[in-house]
Amino acid sequence: MIDYSSILLRNKPDEGERERIRLIVLEVGKRISEYCRNMGIDADPVLVGSAAKGTNLKSADIDIFVRFSRLYKEREMEKMGVSIGKLIIEDGVEKYAEHPYVTGHYKGFKMDIVPSYRLNPGEKKISSVDRTPLHTEFVLRNLSEGMKDEVILLKLFMKHFGIYGSEVKVSGFSGYVCELLVWKYGSFENVVRKFAELSGRLMVGEVGKNNIPESPVFIVDPVDSSRNAAAALSEESLSTMKVASKLFLFQPNASFFDQKKMIERPKYADRGTAIRVFTLPRPDVVDDTIFPQAVKFRNSLLTLLESGGFHPLSSEIATDGQIQVLIECRNPFSPEIIFKEGPPADSPNVIDFIEKYRCTAERGPYIRGNRIWVEVRALPESIADFVSSHIDELSIGKNLSRLKEGLEIHDPLMDNIRMEVLDRFYSKRII
Amino acid sequence: MIDYSSILLRNKPDEGERERIRLIVLEVGKRISEYCRNMGIDADPVLVGSAAKGTNLKSADIDIFVRFSRLYKEREMEKMGVSIGKLIIEDGVEKYAEHPYVTGHYKGFKMDIVPSYRLNPGEKKISSVDRTPLHTEFVLRNLSEGMKDEVILLKLFMKHFGIYGSEVKVSGFSGYVCELLVWKYGSFENVVRKFAELSGRLMVGEVGKNNIPESPVFIVDPVDSSRNAAAALSEESLSTMKVASKLFLFQPNASFFDQKKMIERPKYADRGTAIRVFTLPRPDVVDDTIFPQAVKFRNSLLTLLESGGFHPLSSEIATDGQIQVLIECRNPFSPEIIFKEGPPADSPNVIDFIEKYRCTAERGPYIRGNRIWVEVRALPESIADFVSSHIDELSIGKNLSRLKEGLEIHDPLMDNIRMEVLDRFYSKRII
Repeated sequence: MIDYSSILLRNKPDEGERERIRLIVLEVGKRISEYCRNMGIDADPVLVGSAAKGTNLKSADIDIFVRFSRLYKEREMEKMGVSIGKLIIEDGVEKYAEHPYVTGHYKGFKMDIVPSYRLNPGEKKISSVDRTPLHTEFVLRNLSEGMKDEVILLKLFMKHFGIYGSEVKVSGFSGYVCELLVWKYGSFENVVRKFAELSGRLMVGEVGKNNIPESPVFIVDPVDSSRNAAAALSEESLSTMKVASKLFLFQPNASFFDQKKMIERPKYADRGTAIRVFTLPRPDVVDDTIFPQAVKFRNSLLTLLESGGFHPLSSEIATDGQIQVLIECRNPFSPEIIFKEGPPADSPNVIDFIEKYRCTAERGPYIRGNRIWVEVRALPESIADFVSSHIDELSIGKNLSRLKEGLEIHDPLMDNIRMEVLDRFYSKRII
Repeated sequence: MIDYSSILLRNKPDEGERERIRLIVLEVGKRISEYCRNMGIDADPVLVGSAAKGTNLKSADIDIFVRFSRLYKEREMEKMGVSIGKLIIEDGVEKYAEHPYVTGHYKGFKMDIVPSYRLNPGEKKISSVDRTPLHTEFVLRNLSEGMKDEVILLKLFMKHFGIYGSEVKVSGFSGYVCELLVWKYGSFENVVRKFAELSGRLMVGEVGKNNIPESPVFIVDPVDSSRNAAAALSEESLSTMKVASKLFLFQPNASFFDQKKMIERPKYADRGTAIRVFTLPRPDVVDDTIFPQAVKFRNSLLTLLESGGFHPLSSEIATDGQIQVLIECRNPFSPEIIFKEGPPADSPNVIDFIEKYRCTAERGPYIRGNRIWVEVRALPESIADFVSSHIDELSIGKNLSRLKEGLEIHDPLMDNIRMEVLDRFYSKRII
């Protein structure tokens, strides 16, 4: 059927890459250890992530944690960690997730250096970052080389369907979740069979009664039984995995392990709708912070446009380089007649409402259900004019909010420019 | 303030009318009694309704019940009743409510002759019709002449606001409910004050626990404590009465007792929307039967047009002479892009759905929430074409259903014809 070994050959690091990583890790580890010794810092470096576990794809990031003694205060630990990161990574920039960390490039590899605390299994956890080295140990102890290859197949498959990664933008399956799934079910194909047949949510492990999750997938973390290793997974990612698994079993195909190429330049067809792209400059904040704000911005636009009678149909978000929110509406103009819902019949304000509108109403005031309504005539507005005049009502994340004056509204069929969000929108398909 | 006596003078039957009614009732009663005696039928006539109670407006109907012995079977009783009705009323036609009855004209008055059973207070009821004579007795025993005038004022006020009458089309306050309200609160103004201050539902009398009503108003019928005398009242009629009462207290005005004249020929303004009128021939069935079917027809059209992407905004119904359903839509054409919702990700049918659409899809298939979706391109259809091609999906009442082939679809701005439903639509306002 499928020649898995040739897929692995193409996607696993070859002997040369493995050796280069080994040398880099040795070198960086030595430099950090020496620095700490010289500075009298009680900390030691440790390779984590997929490279440490042997489940890394070709050209994967190298993640190095610097584990500090629990005697340091958090601020102190973070500060020292960032200094070390910047010392090692020449083009390193500081980013902020749960803790600050330094990210950049080192001899051709993307590298993160992340400060954390030392933590022994079962010990009271301090942050999710501190738990990561325990995950490495768990995988090294429990997964055979063959199973690691299965993990790589699973990762490739999930990447193909856009559901690999726990970052907010993807809200998919993390590398660790892939490892746990293979540990639990034994092989890539078994995992796929499980998802193809799955009805509703997936629960793996002894989920405590108080933990009954809202999450679509609950996988008890073997190194911390109170934690759902798949907490970041969205319902949409689970549904995608179910359908992807069914597709694989229906027609197994090696192409499911290739990176899906976005259609090079999808045609921006006129759909008889009104597609508008709202852009904001991208602030210098990590994706996991900015993406939820872009979602909030999108939702706020949808609510506003719905209230304005534009009938939004669909939307798309892109955050690379620039915040781009695409909204597709049924109608390019607001209606001539506005239906205004007044107070309920029980309210004393009914009279004020009637007095306010009785002379200018196009129709009404009249009772509908238990409320008073009126219809008034208005000048139709374009989407751009309408949004611009209601911009203060848009509730956007705090990082975006102060960039409101940078809002631009594009009509892609008029403007004739290429945009990431349009490429995403027009090429959206599971297969 | 308001000169109630001049309002009553204009709207109560004068001495001459009262005398004419008295003579007609005597004459009709005598003819029925003689007929029954001659034919050996155990039945007697009784005047019911507002004329019997002295709460009748000018030129009100004369309602005569023929009360049969309980020894007759229902079919037999009905048959004899209709024979008597047709004997008395020359232009009488048989109609069917709970029982059949005969309606027509007698010496300048509209007259109904209704067969029923004799029923004593507390006796096991047979049908609501049998209860009517007991209502007459209750009002005659419990309402003074002054209170009857208050009833007339209340009826006029409710008529003005289109909420007088328990027929389905109005779903408002029946004459008997008006009488009970004045009996309970003492005067027209007290009733208005009660409704102006009312919050939520109105309950009058000892409502048993098991009777806790869904009805907006529950008035325990003094002659049958298990019955809600206001069961036919809609939430909209109650809300209208609340607002009307507030309007009266805000600015008392004698015009609230005049019949509201529908604007003679309201202008059929272009509202920037797509207004269509769907007409069916009116079958020979009473309004209370046909009106709910017209509502069903309207609702079915709304659902269909919503599914077709026309975005219905409002509607209106008329049933005089012809069934006319007006639907106002935001869009005159269906969209070029149809969003098709597929099966859930859990369903094995997902693969069939994907296979069916993957080559022809305009966009997708893709996952949204827990389902697969696809977008396909379609030729936009007009409202008339769309409804005509989906006519089999319309669920209409049984009397209308067989008239489907008589369906006509009008665009009033194009057709330039006057219609009752358009007059109703364009002149809809509470004040």
